[in-house]
Amino acid sequence: MFETKASAPIGVFDSGVGGLTVAREIIRQIPNERIVYFGDTARVPYGSKSKDTVKRYSRQIVRFLLTKDVKAIVVACNTASAFALEDLISEFDIPIIGVIKPGAKAAVENTKTKRIGVIGTEGTIRSAIYTEVIHEYDREAIVLGKPCPLFVPLVEEGWLHDRVTDEVACRYLNEFKDRDIDTLIMGCTHYPLLRSTIMKTMGENVFLVNPAYETANSLKRLLDENNISSPEDLIPKSEMYDFYVSDAPRKFVDFANSIMPVEVETATQVNIEEY
Amino acid sequence: MFETKASAPIGVFDSGVGGLTVAREIIRQIPNERIVYFGDTARVPYGSKSKDTVKRYSRQIVRFLLTKDVKAIVVACNTASAFALEDLISEFDIPIIGVIKPGAKAAVENTKTKRIGVIGTEGTIRSAIYTEVIHEYDREAIVLGKPCPLFVPLVEEGWLHDRVTDEVACRYLNEFKDRDIDTLIMGCTHYPLLRSTIMKTMGENVFLVNPAYETANSLKRLLDENNISSPEDLIPKSEMYDFYVSDAPRKFVDFANSIMPVEVETATQVNIEEY
Repeated sequence: MFETKASAPIGVFDSGVGGLTVAREIIRQIPNERIVYFGDTARVPYGSKSKDTVKRYSRQIVRFLLTKDVKAIVVACNTASAFALEDLISEFDIPIIGVIKPGAKAAVENTKTKRIGVIGTEGTIRSAIYTEVIHEYDREAIVLGKPCPLFVPLVEEGWLHDRVTDEVACRYLNEFKDRDIDTLIMGCTHYPLLRSTIMKTMGENVFLVNPAYETANSLKRLLDENNISSPEDLIPKSEMYDFYVSDAPRKFVDFANSIMPVEVETATQVNIEEY
Repeated sequence: MFETKASAPIGVFDSGVGGLTVAREIIRQIPNERIVYFGDTARVPYGSKSKDTVKRYSRQIVRFLLTKDVKAIVVACNTASAFALEDLISEFDIPIIGVIKPGAKAAVENTKTKRIGVIGTEGTIRSAIYTEVIHEYDREAIVLGKPCPLFVPLVEEGWLHDRVTDEVACRYLNEFKDRDIDTLIMGCTHYPLLRSTIMKTMGENVFLVNPAYETANSLKRLLDENNISSPEDLIPKSEMYDFYVSDAPRKFVDFANSIMPVEVETATQVNIEEY
């Protein structure tokens, strides 16, 4: 029983391609772990949708991942973590972690001014979930949130280093000027792909928190604590990672290959509404 | 029977809020007609999704609209018109029109150079549907298509008159420079809201076709030909228009009130996956 569990894959899901930034951190930090990734490309984006809708979608995806016998699940989407994580944890009997808590914790540990900025989708910022979780670690911290809805389409257009993206970043991040923040959480999985633009705009004195990195780190500890870390060299590298999507796989596979440290040959389409 | 049919509403659907530009043209041109509008706000956008997914979503929505006893259906979404209209017409026993044909016809009637530009979502442009339909009217016409994926999020951000939008428009529309087009189809329902930016970028010599306007016009003729135009002053104005959405109504209602010529008090949420 224990043997089976340890060798089982990690389920990772996101509204689309963004969660691949979390999957790649897992691959970098705990390369022995198998991953079953699901991207809800037929219903992307989640960031502008309501709490109830995101909860319903997240439940369907967890039910799908359970059919793949995963040993733990990572909600690699800030909006789904904000809206659905609590319900998922109470409804399903499997370790589930999101990206909010690891990101919030890292921000609190870094800040000296106790003034933390958060950027994310409309849903994530409106939920004020980062403020809530940051206050669990430090009640005195001041959290300033700003939704940046154009960042995701700019990333998906591939305009990562572009003067339009620079201008949009200036416009959005201008609100943080003179607010004395020393730490900024990139609270959407697409945003680390704009890291250099964001860094240029914010200046060197602001530390950028990448929740994807922190989440992979938390996952490693979670697996160790539960004694379910995968033994080394269990299966061939080519069978380590499986990708599933709710829409046609072509675009997903193209995007995945542009950012992943492993080759993504294919993704399997699933009718997620049936779960 | 005939009486019932004539007084029945028109079903209008779109992936989200964009189709409201079609609904408002219907309200302006045929103000006696009742409208049942459905916006698939839980699964928006369609423009980046596959043909099969958009077909499945469109079928669900038509089945929903039929429960509202509509007398005709307008597919007020370019992507759904491109991908699903033919199947919908053959599968359902009710007059159904899309936005492509009326827009294509108007472009052919206007062009003198026989060189027509089309802008739209990735799905609409990749389908080459406008080229196909334009060639039904004029085989010699040359059609140049260009997807503009950032236009929809820019509209939804409300940056209608903005230097970022100007720069994005320049970038996208630059491909039409020196290509001698005299007519440009705004092949996505959001784009008429960027009319002034597009006009400024293209110059006064390029005629902009608004398929929403042409579609309302075609609908008027369709109703007349089928003897199902609504008699005058049938019901109070406040009961003329019903709005349904698949996600929480708040954002939809806000957007609707910013562009519609009538007050939109409320929209009803529907679980569209059940249809």
